[in-house]
Amino acid sequence: MNKVTIHAPATIANLVCGFDILGLALEAPYDIMEMRLKEEPGITLSSSAAYDLPTNPEDNVAGASLLALMEAYGKPIGFHVHIDKQIKPGSGLGSSAASSAGAVVGANHLLGNIFSKEDLVRFAMNGEKVASGVKHADNITPCIYGGVTLIRSIFPLDIVPLAAPPLYVTVVHPQIEVKTSDARQILRKEVLLKDAIKQWGNIAGLVSGFLKNDYGLIGRSLEDVIIEPVRSILIPGFDEVKQHCKDAGALGGGISGSGPSIFMLSEQASTAQKVEAIMKQVYERLGIDYRTYVTTIGSAGVRVEPMC
Amino acid sequence: MNKVTIHAPATIANLVCGFDILGLALEAPYDIMEMRLKEEPGITLSSSAAYDLPTNPEDNVAGASLLALMEAYGKPIGFHVHIDKQIKPGSGLGSSAASSAGAVVGANHLLGNIFSKEDLVRFAMNGEKVASGVKHADNITPCIYGGVTLIRSIFPLDIVPLAAPPLYVTVVHPQIEVKTSDARQILRKEVLLKDAIKQWGNIAGLVSGFLKNDYGLIGRSLEDVIIEPVRSILIPGFDEVKQHCKDAGALGGGISGSGPSIFMLSEQASTAQKVEAIMKQVYERLGIDYRTYVTTIGSAGVRVEPMC
Repeated sequence: MNKVTIHAPATIANLVCGFDILGLALEAPYDIMEMRLKEEPGITLSSSAAYDLPTNPEDNVAGASLLALMEAYGKPIGFHVHIDKQIKPGSGLGSSAASSAGAVVGANHLLGNIFSKEDLVRFAMNGEKVASGVKHADNITPCIYGGVTLIRSIFPLDIVPLAAPPLYVTVVHPQIEVKTSDARQILRKEVLLKDAIKQWGNIAGLVSGFLKNDYGLIGRSLEDVIIEPVRSILIPGFDEVKQHCKDAGALGGGISGSGPSIFMLSEQASTAQKVEAIMKQVYERLGIDYRTYVTTIGSAGVRVEPMC
Repeated sequence: MNKVTIHAPATIANLVCGFDILGLALEAPYDIMEMRLKEEPGITLSSSAAYDLPTNPEDNVAGASLLALMEAYGKPIGFHVHIDKQIKPGSGLGSSAASSAGAVVGANHLLGNIFSKEDLVRFAMNGEKVASGVKHADNITPCIYGGVTLIRSIFPLDIVPLAAPPLYVTVVHPQIEVKTSDARQILRKEVLLKDAIKQWGNIAGLVSGFLKNDYGLIGRSLEDVIIEPVRSILIPGFDEVKQHCKDAGALGGGISGSGPSIFMLSEQASTAQKVEAIMKQVYERLGIDYRTYVTTIGSAGVRVEPMC
């Protein structure tokens, strides 16, 4: 096989109280990529009309990730990658991570799966460096592993996949710009110990809730007393969306990544639909363009299919 | 039945990275208490010769806990409690919690187990208030529930029992005084966000390690970058004990409660024994009196047996 189709899903990083450590993969939306081995060594890139992605491999997140993989591979090899981007850059839904992760998972498939998932995370972190200047793994990890993932430590990298019960995820992406750098800068460098204690109680509760299939505990633990109070200021309608969605039965939720997308988790599909309706109402009233998704946690992460 | 014998075990609060939220019960040491219903309403208290405990119920941790239980019970009732204290007060091993928890679990048994474990925690928190001025539940909760427990939130009280794989616990109690109030005061009110993130990665890892029976992950997560660097200064020999025990194969450990006891967790009994030998060596050399225990996590917590 020398040609594959790749579905590289959107991801939610900074999962409420799990700032910088917890993320999950969504079932949808996902980027569609096509990838093939080619005779001449090196990387060529193309993309669908919707987004004008860089074609120089060093400047392209998928390209930079593949370069890292090719260096580890050691022998001369060539890939062509075509990216049909469906996850809007700047949405807070891991658009760059999808391209980075998709490219290395696809390449690994074409090479006979010689690299581990952890290797692939390391390669794809080079794509995140191109996108944001930082080698973070918050989105790449759930994208590659699927499901809910914990990054206990980034240096050294320590990834813990967490089983979780079925959950519906409703996402609204208000079409405003929140720069990751602004979202970083707005955070205080120091936090109150008493808030930190509350936060780690909630993180411990959320992880327990996932592993014990305890929806009530998950709901009670979906509280962020440190990051959200600061960052939510950058997202019009945030408090209203969150409160109304919880009133409608959602377990809880928060800012996806560094925003502006907001997500809510629900136990039932019907609740997830109600939550979508609430999100639409809020942004209709505010006169802000938006896009919504009703989906589930994507247990598989990046999916690869052989192409004829 | 109107008479019971109670074994109320020592507990470890502030479980390394789980400051204020994670604790565990030990199999030993434990206080031995005898308790009986008596005709006259009210509480009478006696204790063995080793420690001179207050006999006025309001001033005694077991008495104060029982008073809270009796208020909830509503009808006139009388208890006599005899306490044979085996857990040294001021050891950092939950001595006061053992008396408080033991008394309410015993009383509940004599009354036909009409109260829930959570009720009992609430009653026993009144004992902790007498002991330290604060209604904390860090030691009471594992003492009553057994095993490893998470207190996600104290107000409102949200207790999560956590399953954990078998673990050996080695404890050394250097016979020095560390006042809980000093150990509190020495802490900074603010912490660096980057340290807090490291801490909650470790907490999430530790909880996952317990629930997934992953000894390696437990070991990697037993790291406290916030409290221990400050409090360990109050405990001579701490760094040496910890480093040498880890070199000998212990998974990790730290300060028990607010000290001065130090504990280490091990997967194997033989490692736990080696760890004890190391602890002894260090305090022999330092010329500080000490007491050691090699035990396991106590899965049952307070145990009650009918007495003839």
